[in-house]
Amino acid sequence: MAFQLTTDFLQHIEHLIAQRNGLELKELLQDFHFADIAEILEELKSDDATFLIKSLESEITSEALMEIDEDVREKILERLSPKEIAEELSEMDTDDAADVVAELDEEVKQEVIGEIDDEDRVADIVELLTYEDSTAGALMAKELVKVKETWTVAGCVREMRRQAENVTRVHSIYVTDKEGKLIGRLSLKDLLTAAEKTKISEVFIPKVDFVTVHTENEEVARIMQKYDLEAIPVVDEKGILMGRITIDDIVDFIKDEAEKDYQMAAGISQDVEADDSILELTRARLPWLFLGLLGGVGAATIMGGFEDILQSYALLFFYTPLIAAMAGNVGVQSSAIIVQGLANDDIKGSVSNRLFKEMLLAMLNGLILGIVLFMFTAAWYGDYRAAAAISISLFVVIIVAGIIGTFIPLFLNKRGIDPAIATGPFITTSNDIFGILIYFWIAKLILF
Amino acid sequence: MAFQLTTDFLQHIEHLIAQRNGLELKELLQDFHFADIAEILEELKSDDATFLIKSLESEITSEALMEIDEDVREKILERLSPKEIAEELSEMDTDDAADVVAELDEEVKQEVIGEIDDEDRVADIVELLTYEDSTAGALMAKELVKVKETWTVAGCVREMRRQAENVTRVHSIYVTDKEGKLIGRLSLKDLLTAAEKTKISEVFIPKVDFVTVHTENEEVARIMQKYDLEAIPVVDEKGILMGRITIDDIVDFIKDEAEKDYQMAAGISQDVEADDSILELTRARLPWLFLGLLGGVGAATIMGGFEDILQSYALLFFYTPLIAAMAGNVGVQSSAIIVQGLANDDIKGSVSNRLFKEMLLAMLNGLILGIVLFMFTAAWYGDYRAAAAISISLFVVIIVAGIIGTFIPLFLNKRGIDPAIATGPFITTSNDIFGILIYFWIAKLILF
Repeated sequence: MAFQLTTDFLQHIEHLIAQRNGLELKELLQDFHFADIAEILEELKSDDATFLIKSLESEITSEALMEIDEDVREKILERLSPKEIAEELSEMDTDDAADVVAELDEEVKQEVIGEIDDEDRVADIVELLTYEDSTAGALMAKELVKVKETWTVAGCVREMRRQAENVTRVHSIYVTDKEGKLIGRLSLKDLLTAAEKTKISEVFIPKVDFVTVHTENEEVARIMQKYDLEAIPVVDEKGILMGRITIDDIVDFIKDEAEKDYQMAAGISQDVEADDSILELTRARLPWLFLGLLGGVGAATIMGGFEDILQSYALLFFYTPLIAAMAGNVGVQSSAIIVQGLANDDIKGSVSNRLFKEMLLAMLNGLILGIVLFMFTAAWYGDYRAAAAISISLFVVIIVAGIIGTFIPLFLNKRGIDPAIATGPFITTSNDIFGILIYFWIAKLILF
Repeated sequence: MAFQLTTDFLQHIEHLIAQRNGLELKELLQDFHFADIAEILEELKSDDATFLIKSLESEITSEALMEIDEDVREKILERLSPKEIAEELSEMDTDDAADVVAELDEEVKQEVIGEIDDEDRVADIVELLTYEDSTAGALMAKELVKVKETWTVAGCVREMRRQAENVTRVHSIYVTDKEGKLIGRLSLKDLLTAAEKTKISEVFIPKVDFVTVHTENEEVARIMQKYDLEAIPVVDEKGILMGRITIDDIVDFIKDEAEKDYQMAAGISQDVEADDSILELTRARLPWLFLGLLGGVGAATIMGGFEDILQSYALLFFYTPLIAAMAGNVGVQSSAIIVQGLANDDIKGSVSNRLFKEMLLAMLNGLILGIVLFMFTAAWYGDYRAAAAISISLFVVIIVAGIIGTFIPLFLNKRGIDPAIATGPFITTSNDIFGILIYFWIAKLILF
């Protein structure tokens, strides 16, 4: 059932655009879902995409514009007049409209706002722009269905019909007092089953989850997930109902966060995509690579300091990549578990308990791996002392790496720093250096 | 507003449980949200948790049971009688009930099903159990509001009131023909605004997204996200409406997938949590560590093969951890971008284009890093030829690592294997070996 964009179809559209045949484009695409239009827009050149936007109803294109990549959208908006942008905005929910306006240049912004007819809408958008990024205020939309506790069920249904005009999906009906303070919600079921003359105050549910405009997005996501909410009302400091956040915004947020953590763990410092330019990709990747370079130079310097044992035990030097790799792997594993546990809020107990557990875990892993390595190296080289030195060092390195991998994210988290930066290259690099230092130090102790 | 479980409060509950004071427990916790009850259950010993479950209304506990960890739930269910389990099940949505039944031992399963009074429910649960794991059939719930096209608006509202009894949240009203085939949906707005005698066939929306019972969860998640759906109907092969999937199940699925990918990238092969036992954590971590060990032994063997240049250029051996680390980092970066792009379905263009781009990118990174390393090593050791050998090798290694990191996930994906396994230790290990081999080979070429 899902739409699949084929090359043939895309060429047909490009052909129609080249012919400036807006009418046929409109006919062809009018029943398409906006998400499919968005997919087409992303494949077109900016000028072509702009022509397509102009050819279709803003009812569809406004939604499609919200689906496409920010940089594609930017290029299209640059090619539209303030009036045309205002038309698109008038079809969007206020939260999307505010997001688009926020992306515009300062002078264009004013012109576009000037072109919006509906004054309430302008006020809503301007209000949304005032909230700090990554708070509930900036994420919420102003569209919602609200009723006053003093109304009757019949009056409420009437009013809902009116309000529903502006609200694409009714998630919940919020109940406020005379001043607009959120005092509860109304279930659709109760509204359907109550007698027409019943007062809302008699049927509404006084328990309602909410967040304030200042609540961080992360906390909003946590609450909505924990309590399985599909929408949550947002109030100001005084408890006045200001807007609502829906689950689809939270789905996007959760995905973005997961991708950011994933990229961070992979040593990519900025949010990039496979289709970004080489320069953008380089900027995102180079910082961590530099860190790796620094770590490598550090390791080389340490090894230089042990040059005197090169004559008698060259073998030791052959195993430095193994030691570094194992230290890195163990560190990444430990830190990943902690970072994930912190994100899911299920790290319980004290730091020292956690470190003790990790130590036991690392000892078990280290013991198994150390024995395997000893058996191999002893059999292969026939030098039991060297084999013991390498294996015992590996054992100690794994324990230290596990402890560092556990401690650093916990420490960063305590300091209010995102622990996710501790995964990936950061932990790998520091563990490389520590690992090699410990390795030579122990090996020397055993062998000399 | 969010509930915070304190140690004091927990102790108070444990105290009440020790006293077997079910009445006070019930009074204390009856207004609690099920998600908060779940949090408390997870902190209690299994016997205590079971007592708490028995003390509270199954209306709350059934939902709380679905929120807790599978292994905690298992221990509680073991302590409940089939009759008690059946009571909990009768309060759950069918999809949750089926999940719980699926977790039970075969004999208990039959007893529990025998204890459920409602025969329709039994039929629903048994049906849900027949679908394959990780398909829409296994994910869907049977609860939904459906109306026939031949009904009037008034009849529809009547019927909805009846059906709404079993449906906690009305997401959409689905319209079927006489045989039960899904033919469209009805918006609440239209239902509110249409005249009572209007036929549903006149007002329903014939366009409706749907999936079949055999659609993979991943595809369901993709469709629901792409089209911003909060619920999607599920049909069988003949188009008969069978159930519906709601966004909260998809949110859980998306989170689980993201966590799995993240763990895979970190070298953790099974779904584990920080609080799992040491043995479970070891089982999840050891396989990748073994791979790393193997890689390290491989690298050591390669270096052993170049032992003859140890006399004249010991320096080269000091830089093997750097080479291995850089090869690993570049590989992880490249593969992470590809894996993410594949997951988001935005890898476009041919494989060779992608590889060419990665090559350019790696050349740019390699050039910058190579020059920096050359300047440092030349200045530090005063040996320009050795410095050139190390830096040029690094340059080549980075390019090869980038290409391998790009190619492997694309290749796995083409073969239908989850490309995420290519990130983390897999790519690090293979790149370590390739990197060191290339490094010595080029260095030897330059120096001798």
